Amino acid sequence: MPIGTQGTVKSLDKAELEKLGSQIILGNTYHLWLRPDLDVLESAGGLHKFSNWDRPILTDSGGFQAFSLAKIRKFSDEGVTFSSHLNGERRFLSPEESMRIQTIIGSDIALVLDECLPAEVSKVEAKRAMKRTWEWAKRSRDEFEKLRKKSLHQNNLFGIPQGAQFNDLRVESAKMTMDLGLPGYSIGGVANGGEPEEIMYSQVLEQTQILEEEKPRHLLGVGTPRDIVEMVARGIDMFDCVMPTRNARHGSLFVGVSDFGYINIKIKTKRYEKDFSPINLNSKFEELRTYSKAYLRHLFISKELLAFRLATLNNLEFYLDLTKRIREKIIKDEFGGFWKNFGQID
Amino acid sequence: MPIGTQGTVKSLDKAELEKLGSQIILGNTYHLWLRPDLDVLESAGGLHKFSNWDRPILTDSGGFQAFSLAKIRKFSDEGVTFSSHLNGERRFLSPEESMRIQTIIGSDIALVLDECLPAEVSKVEAKRAMKRTWEWAKRSRDEFEKLRKKSLHQNNLFGIPQGAQFNDLRVESAKMTMDLGLPGYSIGGVANGGEPEEIMYSQVLEQTQILEEEKPRHLLGVGTPRDIVEMVARGIDMFDCVMPTRNARHGSLFVGVSDFGYINIKIKTKRYEKDFSPINLNSKFEELRTYSKAYLRHLFISKELLAFRLATLNNLEFYLDLTKRIREKIIKDEFGGFWKNFGQID
Repeated sequence: MPIGTQGTVKSLDKAELEKLGSQIILGNTYHLWLRPDLDVLESAGGLHKFSNWDRPILTDSGGFQAFSLAKIRKFSDEGVTFSSHLNGERRFLSPEESMRIQTIIGSDIALVLDECLPAEVSKVEAKRAMKRTWEWAKRSRDEFEKLRKKSLHQNNLFGIPQGAQFNDLRVESAKMTMDLGLPGYSIGGVANGGEPEEIMYSQVLEQTQILEEEKPRHLLGVGTPRDIVEMVARGIDMFDCVMPTRNARHGSLFVGVSDFGYINIKIKTKRYEKDFSPINLNSKFEELRTYSKAYLRHLFISKELLAFRLATLNNLEFYLDLTKRIREKIIKDEFGGFWKNFGQID
Repeated sequence: MPIGTQGTVKSLDKAELEKLGSQIILGNTYHLWLRPDLDVLESAGGLHKFSNWDRPILTDSGGFQAFSLAKIRKFSDEGVTFSSHLNGERRFLSPEESMRIQTIIGSDIALVLDECLPAEVSKVEAKRAMKRTWEWAKRSRDEFEKLRKKSLHQNNLFGIPQGAQFNDLRVESAKMTMDLGLPGYSIGGVANGGEPEEIMYSQVLEQTQILEEEKPRHLLGVGTPRDIVEMVARGIDMFDCVMPTRNARHGSLFVGVSDFGYINIKIKTKRYEKDFSPINLNSKFEELRTYSKAYLRHLFISKELLAFRLATLNNLEFYLDLTKRIREKIIKDEFGGFWKNFGQID
């Protein structure tokens, strides 16, 4: 899922997203709640109409940003009180409020509100948060069902298995979340603190071994191209990550993809000053086939707006092609070899 | 001419510029000389190839930016020595150097180097600058002819009639410039100091009454939509101005064009918060027909990159449609009525 934090995938328009083959994009409940705000979104008839996007949208619950962006925040069993990072305005986010916001946004996949934790959390603290997240999940589900009955828009609610870095808690949380009877899962808390990859992989595997295979398993906020492959191998079906778009805006490009991996280039370096080869000769976008690396470098060095669009198109095309390639490998029963080989080539 | 200061019309790509119907764009010699620099442009085979643009390019001489952007600058009969506004590097721009740079850029229309003056200049000073500009124009022409003989690219050199706010100097300068025998003119020095419109109009008329009608007369750096109409009435054939693109990036949009004028809207104001009408229902760009004003406002308020592209497309479409409308009115012999009526409607 390309990330459309504020109701727009940075620098792209609808036609470009469709041409990329984006089946679904992610919107951030916290950001959209603060700006443009619910009043505008409700008047517009939801985010789809407001942003002119008619394919699916997944929204997070707002909990992660209330935890990571808001300067002042206070968690209680009721919910989280925080001050907006934009203007300091005080807001209260509860499971019920999160469901109300996501219903107004009109997302196709909404997420239960969970309590996010810092990376280096104690087991006692992780257990406490898991219990609270479980209570919030039930309240989220009940409120969601109520709102859904009143709505014409038939959206879905995903549960969030947690458990921090503790494998037994991960197992327990997965089982508890399954009891909610929701149509899918967004595995949380594995990528918000820079954990080593192996720990992240094992956290996920503990849960995908348990969660029903026939329900979509989404992994929140992951990751590098290699992470994607590793996580598919561990049973993940859906991804969202700022990496393709954010790296693009910093001039970090994924190119030269094959079954053996890809190359990561820093387009701003002197090395590309006179590299007049196309950004990506195999792109489906004419602009990436015809503009040169040297020109893209010039746009970046000169802080020109077109730089961000070209780089974003390039990186999202790479990521979406990667997941497409993975699907094809799975269908052709060739994923094992692909998994073994695919990585960054330097 | 849309302005492509650094070899890119800010936020747009080639396909969009072509769809807009841009017949020619302007590049800034000063900026391109400093970045990417001549070495890169020469290796690329000129700006057309570098920037993937195969329609005409006009470049200015670099004199105006050396005057207005460089912090330290010293004019002499030889040329102008200045420090780059980017890194303080010392550079020397002479008529010969300007011709060399513009030849490497490969512009289709190059401009002679002229000495730019502040708005409130004395007649003695204006006369002195006019004489120097005349000497520089001859040197520019001679060097240009030399370089042109060695080049496969058959470009053109325009002269720059000046004269500041003094009508007799304007007349004298126009006559002197005609003596150069160049294929066109770029009238200079009428828009760099915020002169009242009536003075600007009269300065131009003094010269267009003299300059050969069969040669293109370009007016440097003008202006508002009303200015364009007034200047066409005074015999101007070509325009360049940052107004459509720069205003766009500040959220100032030209909309609702008709034979009677246009409306200028400030999209960031609260008034458009829930205005879900399209940015421009009559646009040839689907994105302007389908994205709403409220959404564009949200993009601006949220500092989202797509805002700049949509607003730039809107304003350039407006300007290019305006000149197209003017051409049609002239052909149908209806320009007089149009000239009388067309203006900003509030």
